[in-house]
Amino acid sequence: MEFKISKELIAQLQELIQGNNSTALEALLADMHQADIAEILDELTIDEATYIFKVLESEKTAEILLEMEDDLREKILSRLSPKEIAEELDELETNDAADIIAELSREKKEEVIQEIEDIEHAKDIVELLRYKENTAGGLMHKELVKVNENWTVLHCVKEMRIQAENISRVHSIYVVDDEDRLKGRLSLKDLLVSSTKKAISDIYIRKLNWVNVDTEDTEVARIMQKYDLEAIPVVDEMGRLVGRITIDDIVDVIKEEADKDYQLAAGISQDVEADDSILELTRARLPWLVLALLGGMISVHVLGLFEGAMDGHRNLFFFTPLIAAMAGNVGVQSSAIIVQGLANNTLSGTVFQRLVKEVSLTLLNGIILAAILFLGSHFLLQVDTTIGIIVGIALITVIVIASLIGTFVPLLLDKFGIDPALATGPFITTSNDICGILIYFSIAKLILGF
Amino acid sequence: MEFKISKELIAQLQELIQGNNSTALEALLADMHQADIAEILDELTIDEATYIFKVLESEKTAEILLEMEDDLREKILSRLSPKEIAEELDELETNDAADIIAELSREKKEEVIQEIEDIEHAKDIVELLRYKENTAGGLMHKELVKVNENWTVLHCVKEMRIQAENISRVHSIYVVDDEDRLKGRLSLKDLLVSSTKKAISDIYIRKLNWVNVDTEDTEVARIMQKYDLEAIPVVDEMGRLVGRITIDDIVDVIKEEADKDYQLAAGISQDVEADDSILELTRARLPWLVLALLGGMISVHVLGLFEGAMDGHRNLFFFTPLIAAMAGNVGVQSSAIIVQGLANNTLSGTVFQRLVKEVSLTLLNGIILAAILFLGSHFLLQVDTTIGIIVGIALITVIVIASLIGTFVPLLLDKFGIDPALATGPFITTSNDICGILIYFSIAKLILGF
Repeated sequence: MEFKISKELIAQLQELIQGNNSTALEALLADMHQADIAEILDELTIDEATYIFKVLESEKTAEILLEMEDDLREKILSRLSPKEIAEELDELETNDAADIIAELSREKKEEVIQEIEDIEHAKDIVELLRYKENTAGGLMHKELVKVNENWTVLHCVKEMRIQAENISRVHSIYVVDDEDRLKGRLSLKDLLVSSTKKAISDIYIRKLNWVNVDTEDTEVARIMQKYDLEAIPVVDEMGRLVGRITIDDIVDVIKEEADKDYQLAAGISQDVEADDSILELTRARLPWLVLALLGGMISVHVLGLFEGAMDGHRNLFFFTPLIAAMAGNVGVQSSAIIVQGLANNTLSGTVFQRLVKEVSLTLLNGIILAAILFLGSHFLLQVDTTIGIIVGIALITVIVIASLIGTFVPLLLDKFGIDPALATGPFITTSNDICGILIYFSIAKLILGF
Repeated sequence: MEFKISKELIAQLQELIQGNNSTALEALLADMHQADIAEILDELTIDEATYIFKVLESEKTAEILLEMEDDLREKILSRLSPKEIAEELDELETNDAADIIAELSREKKEEVIQEIEDIEHAKDIVELLRYKENTAGGLMHKELVKVNENWTVLHCVKEMRIQAENISRVHSIYVVDDEDRLKGRLSLKDLLVSSTKKAISDIYIRKLNWVNVDTEDTEVARIMQKYDLEAIPVVDEMGRLVGRITIDDIVDVIKEEADKDYQLAAGISQDVEADDSILELTRARLPWLVLALLGGMISVHVLGLFEGAMDGHRNLFFFTPLIAAMAGNVGVQSSAIIVQGLANNTLSGTVFQRLVKEVSLTLLNGIILAAILFLGSHFLLQVDTTIGIIVGIALITVIVIASLIGTFVPLLLDKFGIDPALATGPFITTSNDICGILIYFSIAKLILGF
């Protein structure tokens, strides 16, 4: 069951906007989910969207703002005054507010922060702005329920009531000492069955998972997935509890990370989608194509080196795209398996074991493929046997080397702290194309002696 | 902060196993998380792992079973009697139990179900086995809290206490009518502040999201992400509440879907990882390579058709890998953007608009690339101007057509209900290689007339 935008609804909204009928507009949108309203605004002109935005309560528009496409949000924010933006932020959780502020210009950012009414909220937002985007600090929010280990159960319950008011989902109660250092967590059940005079230190659970502010977001995602956590506390360098990350934020990290790896493998720089502008798409796609083109020019040069073969062995040249394509395909397979293994932390064994495995695997595949190619060359393409043998041997050699490049380049990048996904896609196909062609003709030259 | 397996720990465990010291083993593993124990078992021999498995309580081993790699789980289950497996299943939530049963042979499946002690639990598991794996029915579990709209608040609270006992996280309370049809949900807060005599029908919220048993799992994931839901109820064809899906199950769906698309784009059939056996990896990789090889043989044949060019225009052949590679790269970019747009439901506009956009985009890229190639051919590769012009024109034509193939093949597959991700990777590069070479030499022939 899901909401679908209809043309009738859009027409009806436009009519109400033109008629300046804000009451009817509010009534019409009252029961709709913020995610649906965000979709509707995307179908309207920016003037119409801004009109609706100003008609609705900031409690509602703040949530809508979060659900919008980045482009639309940017446009709408540019039409709001710092005071109006601050009103939206007052309604949001700290990390959502910080994410929105981070998109503003430096100047507007300061003006907006000045206008936030709740000083504590503003302080928290400013603190969050300090952390890098792809760390636990950049992901966490300040909203959480924490109690002191020295409190009694009674005191604790009273304090919790106050704290829980600002939090949509409690998930966990964290226990800290007088210095705010994270000590453990409290189960709601234990709290409810304990005598009100008991000290928290007697009933809390000392074992819990936590991350540091500078833990990478993908690492946080991995830990939360591994231990099936719905929330995880974040501590600073001194072990003090500074925030909390919840599973819904992690879902976004997982999605973004997967999308990023996928796009890199396809030769697209991060963060574009089909509906972005031609200029944005070009910026994401062209650099990889230029890289591939330059690689292609090297392969032209390499082929030129073997021009001598043209005199007696023209057939050899017909096989170059096949050899290059197979090198590329095998390289991409190998690198994809390594990139995914690194991302999911499922690689085991030593580098030498991996080398032996990859070579055996590709040898097995290579022999089967070379046999097919040899038979195909002989019966279908009717090339003479020597050429058939040469392309067969070359195919095995080329794909073994291509798979080694595909395996070890990402491992090497990872070792140096570079995203191994960069080594997939055009990078690996292009370098394997060149290597493949070079190896193929070298083998041919060795055998035929042109 | 995360647990790391040490060699010392493994050695210590092995010593205890050899000494048959089950008490010390239990004590050592008592405080460890099931996910960590699953990792430890993976480092031991299957005999040692089975020994530990039989020493620990089924409450604990059931959870460990869920966290294990598929291979290890299969091996361990094969060493347990139907009664022992049934004891594990008694401890698990219905969907987890059903997932494990589904992996067993038909015969063992029946024996295990016979042995489950809790008849209601067994009934629920059997019901879940009926649903297809990639639907809401296959994803949901039966554990949920539901109340009748005709009950009073008092009756409701009593019933909830009983129901909540088997459920790790309540998330939501669902309201049904006498026929078990889903009517809405109840907020815990409203329940607590209402008079105990009030009827549930007076206080429940009628608006809520739900899915059908046969809704696809990726669609469920999309809805839950869009509306930020931590749980969603599942209804059958008659609108009766039959189960519930929680966010942790959805995290797995998102992860698997992304992994699958990524692997398909790299020419790997679903569900292998770096540590699988050479045979499994070959099964996942070889078919795609054979496909690419057959495509390659077609390209050999196509090139043979233009053998005449060898007499006066040898240089032309040096550019074939470049043209083929560029066709492949552009095709993969275009298809990746479409596949991701389809997966994230972010494609808008008509097919014609997409066509215009894709052609403009690739024309823009193509002109820039052709200029670089022309200059490179002239100054670096020192090819004569006519050839430079031919490869330039060919490059533009080839990549425009490659991008159209890359855009429309996935759209077409999607229209016919086939996974569009199949069109990425080797499939698109191979067909674009062939098209590219054919177009390139046709243009050359037209201009040079060989």
